[in-house]
Amino acid sequence: MAKAPASTLDNVIALAKKRGFVFPSGDIYGGTRSAWDYGPLGVELKENIRRQWWRTFVQGREDMVGLDSAIILPTRVWEASEHVKTFTDPLVECRSCHSRFREDHLLEAFEEKKGRAPEGGLAEVPCPNCGTRGEFTEPQQFSGLMKTYLGAVDNESGLHYLRPETAQGIFVNFLNVVTAARQKPPFGIGQVGKAFRNEITPGNFIFRTREFEQMEIEFFTPPADAQEWFDRWVEDCWNWFVDLGIDPDHMRRLEVPEEDRAHYSDGTIDIEYSFGFQGSQWGELMGIANRTDFDLGRHTEVSGTKMQYFDQANDERYTPYVIEPSFGLTRSMMAFLVDAYREDEAPNTKGGVDKRTVLGLDPRLAPVKVAVLPLSKSEDLVPRAKALADELRGLWNVEVDVSQAIGRRYRRQDEIGTPFCVTVDFDTAEDQAVTIRERDSMEQSRVALTEVKGFLAQRLAGA
Amino acid sequence: MAKAPASTLDNVIALAKKRGFVFPSGDIYGGTRSAWDYGPLGVELKENIRRQWWRTFVQGREDMVGLDSAIILPTRVWEASEHVKTFTDPLVECRSCHSRFREDHLLEAFEEKKGRAPEGGLAEVPCPNCGTRGEFTEPQQFSGLMKTYLGAVDNESGLHYLRPETAQGIFVNFLNVVTAARQKPPFGIGQVGKAFRNEITPGNFIFRTREFEQMEIEFFTPPADAQEWFDRWVEDCWNWFVDLGIDPDHMRRLEVPEEDRAHYSDGTIDIEYSFGFQGSQWGELMGIANRTDFDLGRHTEVSGTKMQYFDQANDERYTPYVIEPSFGLTRSMMAFLVDAYREDEAPNTKGGVDKRTVLGLDPRLAPVKVAVLPLSKSEDLVPRAKALADELRGLWNVEVDVSQAIGRRYRRQDEIGTPFCVTVDFDTAEDQAVTIRERDSMEQSRVALTEVKGFLAQRLAGA
Repeated sequence: MAKAPASTLDNVIALAKKRGFVFPSGDIYGGTRSAWDYGPLGVELKENIRRQWWRTFVQGREDMVGLDSAIILPTRVWEASEHVKTFTDPLVECRSCHSRFREDHLLEAFEEKKGRAPEGGLAEVPCPNCGTRGEFTEPQQFSGLMKTYLGAVDNESGLHYLRPETAQGIFVNFLNVVTAARQKPPFGIGQVGKAFRNEITPGNFIFRTREFEQMEIEFFTPPADAQEWFDRWVEDCWNWFVDLGIDPDHMRRLEVPEEDRAHYSDGTIDIEYSFGFQGSQWGELMGIANRTDFDLGRHTEVSGTKMQYFDQANDERYTPYVIEPSFGLTRSMMAFLVDAYREDEAPNTKGGVDKRTVLGLDPRLAPVKVAVLPLSKSEDLVPRAKALADELRGLWNVEVDVSQAIGRRYRRQDEIGTPFCVTVDFDTAEDQAVTIRERDSMEQSRVALTEVKGFLAQRLAGA
Repeated sequence: MAKAPASTLDNVIALAKKRGFVFPSGDIYGGTRSAWDYGPLGVELKENIRRQWWRTFVQGREDMVGLDSAIILPTRVWEASEHVKTFTDPLVECRSCHSRFREDHLLEAFEEKKGRAPEGGLAEVPCPNCGTRGEFTEPQQFSGLMKTYLGAVDNESGLHYLRPETAQGIFVNFLNVVTAARQKPPFGIGQVGKAFRNEITPGNFIFRTREFEQMEIEFFTPPADAQEWFDRWVEDCWNWFVDLGIDPDHMRRLEVPEEDRAHYSDGTIDIEYSFGFQGSQWGELMGIANRTDFDLGRHTEVSGTKMQYFDQANDERYTPYVIEPSFGLTRSMMAFLVDAYREDEAPNTKGGVDKRTVLGLDPRLAPVKVAVLPLSKSEDLVPRAKALADELRGLWNVEVDVSQAIGRRYRRQDEIGTPFCVTVDFDTAEDQAVTIRERDSMEQSRVALTEVKGFLAQRLAGA
């Protein structure tokens, strides 16, 4: 079941900017397409996704541990991993306006528009900037690695790279973890962190940026068991998204053909989400790759340190295979937002209905768990509401909203996905109770002040 | 009360490496002094510190919201903040061996060793590398900013900087947050994230690195209230460390003299911790600075966007003052480790005592909350222990430890600061109970299996 694409995505982007989930980075200076800033609601949502991932895949499993390696690793790491050599894109320059483009992107865009590949190759393709047709230079390989320089001199001896994936920080620590954390295959190491790629054409909101966050697992297995673990990880990853609320009809598995795979992969399945982009509505949410013994083997070769495991039980030394489930954190956040967005109707005070926008986020992901609303700005109700909010704040992220009509405030909380609104009204002083409204059903319950914590705790378990 | 310095610090560093809190980054390639990798225990400890900070200062306060801005901001941000112009160190080069050093570090090292400043300035100072005396070039200003290049061409038009502080990402979003999150001064924005400085002499373990993590607050106030908020923030920051277990006798406040302050600061108090470094045992843990209206004023000037607040109640438009409590996350972690480290004695099975090493970390910070230990490797006990661990794993970070004698396993858990060990023994099948041992008192309680969760939940509240 495909949903109406462009409009939902546009609405989500507009909502995300208006309500402060995501801001264009450095917008007072004209912004940058490289990255986005996450506002008060965005940082909570992103953090909740991260925490759920960590709880499920790292703390929640006996066979996993965590790691947090540096962004700037020694340069030889990237030589060994072959990123320096192969992490490149074919770039062409328009001879007329000197804009540069990825050759493959130009060809794809043509095919998408015309429904067929350009027979004459680039000769048939117009420059997206100036319109001149087919005046492109021969493609040159351009590195996607971002450079920086360390140390007291500003030359090639200090050349370093920002990591394009968190994975290598895990591989180079394989032996450290085996020894210090006494792990043995099959086991995995999980890591969440920033990665940097010099994308030529960043775009589609937070989908493709030069600075982004990954949640990666490198799972080390005896070679004979690699395929079985690969299949299990595909299922576990798929189920994680579904468990947190993504409609499985909006996802698909894609077996990546050999020519499109990364240089280290012997098999990759992407999980794609129906973001609703123009052209192709599908976008990669994550990939599960069989990296074989490529990375540990390369590091053994280049560093001279044997990145192997000695299996005492079988008196056998071997290089483990690696199954890599690699999630995009910022892409996941975008998918959770798009999937949670809906418009429906809510009763108004005049006996009719109003339109409302709801982010139907799983309560574990919702950035604000509880909003406390004094029915009016009266001097009696506001301090009472604030005292209740202070009490709940020890447990959850809580907001107090004082201004405007109560219906309007409900709409505002629905729009950011707050699961529960607690209203302090003029009866509260008398009956020592408040009204709790649930986001999706809009059902209201009168709950004694002494019971509020318990009522919410039951419904916000794991959040 | 000063404690024996060097040895504790050395012991902590050794323990941190051995048990996998912290690994030298990229050590199979000879490592880098720029950064460290955080292993399975280190990533949990660091994350717990981060979460406590966020809970206390962001979610726990009505007057704070969070943010997560990009590491690579538009270059004009750093021109406006004057980092491009002023974030430099005086560097000299030894004419004999061509090593480079910070002039101020050379002078300080001399003074520390000799107890007096060198009368002849650098002329009297030997090169730390080759020993040649006083053969240094004139100092040149060297930028502490790390460069990188974005976009399809590799030249100055793509020049960007990695942020040397998270603060500017907050300043440039001031208006976005005021509008989207409907905040008004006094209020603050908190952010946790990586920052990068091209330190010439990184060192002292994780204390001074080129890649590090900050937890920063920019608190916006009406100018007249700035001093009052400054004083309150000094207290709140101090108390946060004490509440999480740092002995206040190991901290001190230091009023930073004008000539040593950052260019934006009108007053700074550093909170220092007695790390026990050689030379001076004290090191900066964090600083609270009064940045006045410097940053918002500069961004107004350079961007042309008025970074001001319009106070409707007083019909007045003004540029808020900013009080900045800036914490080092990785430095905080180092302080919590040093302060928690102790050696004492534990009874052994022979009626005597053994030495034990304990990390007396606050349970909220301890990387592993509960260890489940089957008394023996028997086929009956291990699955029982694993089942119990699975049950607890939904709530806390739990470890199962199967190998070696129980006393040895207690020592191992003490050493990493695990507050509770739960032992499954041969009576468990019969009495449906386990023994729970507390780390500090070493007291053991027999607890029914049905009560284990409640017993631990009560003692691990907030963890």
